[in-house]
Amino acid sequence: MEHSAILVAGGSGQRMQTDVPKQFLELAGMPVLVHTIRAFQQYDSEIELVVVLPNNELERWAGICKQYGLIDRVTAVAGGASRTASVRNGLVACKGMGLIGIHDGVRPFVSATLIGRCFAAAEQHGAAVPVVSIQESIREKLPDGRSRAEDRNRFVAIQTPQCFRAGILREAYEAFEGEATDDATVVEAAGHPISLVEGERNNLKLTTPLDLQLAALLIHSGIG
Amino acid sequence: MEHSAILVAGGSGQRMQTDVPKQFLELAGMPVLVHTIRAFQQYDSEIELVVVLPNNELERWAGICKQYGLIDRVTAVAGGASRTASVRNGLVACKGMGLIGIHDGVRPFVSATLIGRCFAAAEQHGAAVPVVSIQESIREKLPDGRSRAEDRNRFVAIQTPQCFRAGILREAYEAFEGEATDDATVVEAAGHPISLVEGERNNLKLTTPLDLQLAALLIHSGIG
Repeated sequence: MEHSAILVAGGSGQRMQTDVPKQFLELAGMPVLVHTIRAFQQYDSEIELVVVLPNNELERWAGICKQYGLIDRVTAVAGGASRTASVRNGLVACKGMGLIGIHDGVRPFVSATLIGRCFAAAEQHGAAVPVVSIQESIREKLPDGRSRAEDRNRFVAIQTPQCFRAGILREAYEAFEGEATDDATVVEAAGHPISLVEGERNNLKLTTPLDLQLAALLIHSGIG
Repeated sequence: MEHSAILVAGGSGQRMQTDVPKQFLELAGMPVLVHTIRAFQQYDSEIELVVVLPNNELERWAGICKQYGLIDRVTAVAGGASRTASVRNGLVACKGMGLIGIHDGVRPFVSATLIGRCFAAAEQHGAAVPVVSIQESIREKLPDGRSRAEDRNRFVAIQTPQCFRAGILREAYEAFEGEATDDATVVEAAGHPISLVEGERNNLKLTTPLDLQLAALLIHSGIG
């Protein structure tokens, strides 16, 4: 089946704290989002790529595309007011009828192996997300203000790319109302079970200035 | 009330992957555990400190104590086969009758402010643990092999120091059977509610070689 990927990078941009949004910050001399794009191209050089960006960053992105030879390789669309709205816009721009992966633009360390594992599981089961174990002890907050110990082994932490057969994903987003923090939640709401795939500890989501420093360290040490 | 802290650093040592256990690895020229000790001494220069170490590391620790002027300032005891057993050994060595904090020896970035906040909450409520929000989306694994989206905001991730009135903590450990990944679970099993205190994102637990590199970065950047 053919592959498409929607790289969600920005939404409304409300949470940015730097002049340059984090997806454009440079890691080892290259914008984070370009690292992410190259990871997907390394998996499949012909993959259809759609990036969803804040509307006011499309011009900056055009310059980056020119600089890194990405014109005609990547479609850019403006995001919406929420992650869910941004993914919807990405789906409108995405032509893929095979498998669609939705990935955080600020997870540049995703490996070709992991991308392949997620697409393969999606082809087989319809919907697949990569997960890792939760490393810290957790407690559940109760409505009365108290809390109680919870077994962290009952849960997993979700990464991306979350991969789906295109039809399942599109129908699920059409039917979905409200907001979700990830796509598996949307697809699950449409009644499709989600297949869990082993994620990668290094598939970090870069959300803070500290994360960016860590990312630079990872690249420098050859891990990223 | 007087303060004591039990720094749990090693247990049986089964999970160590380096020749030098991680609590002794150097960060900015000083062993991780010495950083942790200094954080507690910065909070209260008179605090009673008990470190729990693998039995076969007590000799190495004696050398470190000499080097860093910690003899007569820190009591060292051998740990047990599990975290729970190690804390029990620490409690035997701990003379404190006031407030006791139990802290991961490999969380060197704990601030004096956070230590103070936890002890204050323990003095008021009997039992207090620092928590931070969970940053990643989570799913619950179901017994039938399926999974379902779970709201991460229902849960918090647990840090240390977990602080308690000494009597509550000692009685809880006396009554507790089995193993627990943290002390709040033990105290809760004895029927005491746990007060949640705002933790610190930088209060990292150093468990992998990558964590150590990150820690060096944090110290270098002045965050740690």
